Amino acid sequence: MIYLDNNATTAIDPAVAAAMAEEYSLGPANASSQHAVGRAAAQRMDDAVQRIGVSLGCDFSLPGGPRLILTSGGTESNNLALAGLGGPHSPLLVSSLEHASVLAFAQRSEKNGRRVFYAPATCDGVVDVDAFTDQLHQASRLADVLPVVSIMSANNETGVIQPIESISSVCRAAGASLHVDATQSFGKVPFDVKSIDADAITVTSHKFHGPAGVGALWLAPGVSLEPQFFGGEQQLTTRPGTEPVALVIGMAIALQLAVDNQSVACQRMSQLRDHLEAQLFDAIPDLLIHGSSATRLPSTTCVSFPGVDRQNMLMALDLAGIACSSGSACSSGSSPPSHVLQAMRAEDWAIRSAIRFSVSRLSTMQEVTQAIELICRVYNRLRSGSIVEN
Amino acid sequence: MIYLDNNATTAIDPAVAAAMAEEYSLGPANASSQHAVGRAAAQRMDDAVQRIGVSLGCDFSLPGGPRLILTSGGTESNNLALAGLGGPHSPLLVSSLEHASVLAFAQRSEKNGRRVFYAPATCDGVVDVDAFTDQLHQASRLADVLPVVSIMSANNETGVIQPIESISSVCRAAGASLHVDATQSFGKVPFDVKSIDADAITVTSHKFHGPAGVGALWLAPGVSLEPQFFGGEQQLTTRPGTEPVALVIGMAIALQLAVDNQSVACQRMSQLRDHLEAQLFDAIPDLLIHGSSATRLPSTTCVSFPGVDRQNMLMALDLAGIACSSGSACSSGSSPPSHVLQAMRAEDWAIRSAIRFSVSRLSTMQEVTQAIELICRVYNRLRSGSIVEN
Repeated sequence: MIYLDNNATTAIDPAVAAAMAEEYSLGPANASSQHAVGRAAAQRMDDAVQRIGVSLGCDFSLPGGPRLILTSGGTESNNLALAGLGGPHSPLLVSSLEHASVLAFAQRSEKNGRRVFYAPATCDGVVDVDAFTDQLHQASRLADVLPVVSIMSANNETGVIQPIESISSVCRAAGASLHVDATQSFGKVPFDVKSIDADAITVTSHKFHGPAGVGALWLAPGVSLEPQFFGGEQQLTTRPGTEPVALVIGMAIALQLAVDNQSVACQRMSQLRDHLEAQLFDAIPDLLIHGSSATRLPSTTCVSFPGVDRQNMLMALDLAGIACSSGSACSSGSSPPSHVLQAMRAEDWAIRSAIRFSVSRLSTMQEVTQAIELICRVYNRLRSGSIVEN
Repeated sequence: MIYLDNNATTAIDPAVAAAMAEEYSLGPANASSQHAVGRAAAQRMDDAVQRIGVSLGCDFSLPGGPRLILTSGGTESNNLALAGLGGPHSPLLVSSLEHASVLAFAQRSEKNGRRVFYAPATCDGVVDVDAFTDQLHQASRLADVLPVVSIMSANNETGVIQPIESISSVCRAAGASLHVDATQSFGKVPFDVKSIDADAITVTSHKFHGPAGVGALWLAPGVSLEPQFFGGEQQLTTRPGTEPVALVIGMAIALQLAVDNQSVACQRMSQLRDHLEAQLFDAIPDLLIHGSSATRLPSTTCVSFPGVDRQNMLMALDLAGIACSSGSACSSGSSPPSHVLQAMRAEDWAIRSAIRFSVSRLSTMQEVTQAIELICRVYNRLRSGSIVEN
């Protein structure tokens, strides 16, 4: 299989797997135990957290400095931020482009009586900052408590990079808390927490060749968070539960590799993605690339193939040996129309026929070249056998 | 170090680590992806879940049958059960012997207005079933909604096995939901979910030589649960988030090894624990073993050493090369007095001087024999230098 679904998950880097295997060979590792075995585990975990700090561009060891809450992954980090920043009555503002782990949380909060605003997007797939600003002012007037905002750094379906700087300025002026879901950005674009004025940032290990089952929520200096789990005293009681030391070490190494290789990887992924788009465009001139006029992640393209159904196309590509997706992998089984493309007011035919291809730093030009040929072949076969609807 | 703190965490079994390394070598594994790569990952994960089913004595593939909700570990499983069974207004009954992940949740629920009952324990460390029954009847009369009960199968500090069958009968008669925190039981005593009439059971991988960062909540046929995370459609939306396939495989193999080896391991651990207790008792006749007249896990002993402080004893044992604990590892840093021994109405001196030793199926007689000598030496030194308070 040619794997072009790296926005869903990535292969673990062999160096990461080796470090985890090494950690597993060291014996019992409960970082909360007081004895030497526990203290050694705590030391290894703290080293990993410090290493994550370096990769994120911050220093956790400073007094009153930022904190890293270790979680089980992106969904938990996003849920924790939205539930834990502000209170149950803080108005919530999210964009209509967010991941299911933000949108489903928002919808649930709305059902529970919390006031929720969904910021619209432009046709290019960028959060509409003017509309967002109006909503934030409206939200601020609503309640005694300040609003909580959650905006992704880059969209998982289109790769479109979001105007976090502008969003942050608006939030700061209004006194709102800002959570940034940066799940898709690490290793693909420069990303330094010091240059982003946010209260909380989500980190998800398996998106950058680290293990699944671990993630983090970075908290800015002075930001506190209402815990969502209750139990032991781990992580200053903000997130109790025995810490998975090997997973944290795996995440630390994966993040370091992602950040250290970012500029070369970015160039390389751009080259692959741009080649894929150019060649597909040459072969299929009425192809539509979503968000192509916006700034995008170098790894991602979301393409509508006129006259075919995305589900048929996915299945045919799968049979031909290409792993890609339509929308988010988190919507399993059937493939509902993309809420992202709907928010971008894409035409019906384009929503019906949209496929996402996403490369990683481990993808090769050989794979992409082969993929282009297969995609064109599959598309031509499907289109010739189908009613052209465009 | 001689590791006698297996109730806190265990070393990962080499066979488990090898299976996880093999899984990591297979490339990207998002079990929600529709393509062949994703379907293969889903197949491997489903196989692991089926294997867990066999080890637990149930069949997940039956229509309407039990379900296994994959979580990040014991704290999440316990929190999920307590929050998700019943509703926010269901009275909650827990024993005063429970783990922090149950007690802290209960205390928080109480703060939020939920009615909570704490069942007392006998001096032997067993939940007082008569008192529990009275409380359950009281709780049932309180609200329109039925109570939720959470009782551990065996105590993590003393190893005392709890009267789950009686508790279950009382719950069934009252229509209450029953959650059993079985964190400490797997691999130590026979444990078959079919023979326990509960609605939900917590499984924690790192307590039986599996990886940390993964656990499960078993749900009885027909039992539904209010999710605590919101996001994608994983696990029928009950617990969204990309599943950590390698961790689930690791847990499945660890559980299978634990269950398959249980009777031999039980015999072996009993032998080690009984030898440890007998030899310590010979050397220190005024030693107090907590819960010794109750049925206990074969792996655990909680011992009070007259005339010494547990914290001094722990530190001295640590320096002598023995890893053990005082209370739960989840209460890190300082060592608050054990709530379990308090609930058992242990005398002050006994609470001040209690140390827990816990072996696993990987512990050896050589380690225990050496430990006995070191413990006696450390104790005699400390006692001769301290004021005897007993």
